[in-house]
Amino acid sequence: MPTAGQLHVILVRTRNPLNIGAAARAMSNFGFRSLRLVNPYSEAFREARSAVGAADVLKNAREFRSLADAVADCSLVVGTTAGRNRCISDALKTPARSAPLIRRRLGSQDVALLFGSEKTGLSSQDLSHCDWSVRIPTVGNISMNLGQAVAVCLYELARDGKKAPAERVRRASSAQIERLNESLIELLATSGYVKSSRELASQKVRGMLRRLQMSEEDVGLLQGMLRQIGWKIGGAGRNRTDA
Amino acid sequence: MPTAGQLHVILVRTRNPLNIGAAARAMSNFGFRSLRLVNPYSEAFREARSAVGAADVLKNAREFRSLADAVADCSLVVGTTAGRNRCISDALKTPARSAPLIRRRLGSQDVALLFGSEKTGLSSQDLSHCDWSVRIPTVGNISMNLGQAVAVCLYELARDGKKAPAERVRRASSAQIERLNESLIELLATSGYVKSSRELASQKVRGMLRRLQMSEEDVGLLQGMLRQIGWKIGGAGRNRTDA
Repeated sequence: MPTAGQLHVILVRTRNPLNIGAAARAMSNFGFRSLRLVNPYSEAFREARSAVGAADVLKNAREFRSLADAVADCSLVVGTTAGRNRCISDALKTPARSAPLIRRRLGSQDVALLFGSEKTGLSSQDLSHCDWSVRIPTVGNISMNLGQAVAVCLYELARDGKKAPAERVRRASSAQIERLNESLIELLATSGYVKSSRELASQKVRGMLRRLQMSEEDVGLLQGMLRQIGWKIGGAGRNRTDA
Repeated sequence: MPTAGQLHVILVRTRNPLNIGAAARAMSNFGFRSLRLVNPYSEAFREARSAVGAADVLKNAREFRSLADAVADCSLVVGTTAGRNRCISDALKTPARSAPLIRRRLGSQDVALLFGSEKTGLSSQDLSHCDWSVRIPTVGNISMNLGQAVAVCLYELARDGKKAPAERVRRASSAQIERLNESLIELLATSGYVKSSRELASQKVRGMLRRLQMSEEDVGLLQGMLRQIGWKIGGAGRNRTDA
């Protein structure tokens, strides 16, 4: 029997301490415990620790230098977007549509729910780490307040008390997919496929790999293949025998 | 054909300008326009006017001296509560359960959705004006942030785009029920039924009258009866011939 996974609320480059506090309070209200911060304004994080009614969540919040590190142990990574046309993947779901999918995955593995900075939201780079994104249906041009968006998403996740049946397949974690991505990009670079920006190619390939929704087993299989090809064409993939 | 009613978001004794601004912003996000404030801290209201992305809602917000005035034109008045044991009526619904009922009434008449102050919520006196209350299901002892509670309630109201069919019956407005309540209390006082606190009796009778969900026609009928009885026992009800 697989053990239940955990939801990690991940705030990326949040500037306003009130918003960090508000996110933590909403998490407390709806029973979620794990808050992760990627490059928050350090002053913001310090100030947020005094937020009303979210002491435990904030005390245990973890800071990360990169989004890749923050989502490494998650097999499902869900972004949030104000719906501007910036989503690399086409997958954009309402909170109501996404909640059952997230709950199902939480039956067995960890899930990340990402919120971008107040000013810019999640970048294309950030979104390339996501399997799909949630967009809260709103009217007009004004984006939602960060704390309110967190509250609505978590409310929707918590609304249905029934536990979803755990998935049978064990999905690859973000760290495993990221290692696969690196192996593939290295191979593609060596073989002359990647001509200009390695970073852009990496985003594109990452998006493709995530869409495949691979199992741990399949990722292992693919890593083996890439390693073999790497040896064949010489050089690439040799450092990637850890997957 | 009845015309569609409007939702009035009513903040009662709100202290924090950020919360007024956050409520207004959530209203903008979900397409609601009418904000009413009952005895807000005047400084709070002034500061709130600079809130991000809610200029129109705040510019058109109306201030009221009493809750009775603020809900006078509404035929359905819905409170919100953190679920502490303070609700006079037993009616406590989740946002999901209350949303269709509110949408149905909005098909033909105005509805008020009340939020109390950050510190104390809605008082028993406030709740006596409500037909029922919404409680967002949360865990733990920490109440929700006001702006986040507004966002969740409005999200739930807006989530189902389909228009509810309008009610056929024209329900009595809060002002009509309040006049009926006054007539009845006056009569009860004259007849010796109300012995101690007139205010407490008024709350109790108001709760009963609201539970009856009376039509305009029935309120008119009852007012006529009370007037007649008042004449008979002398004195009471004479000033209440306007209903």
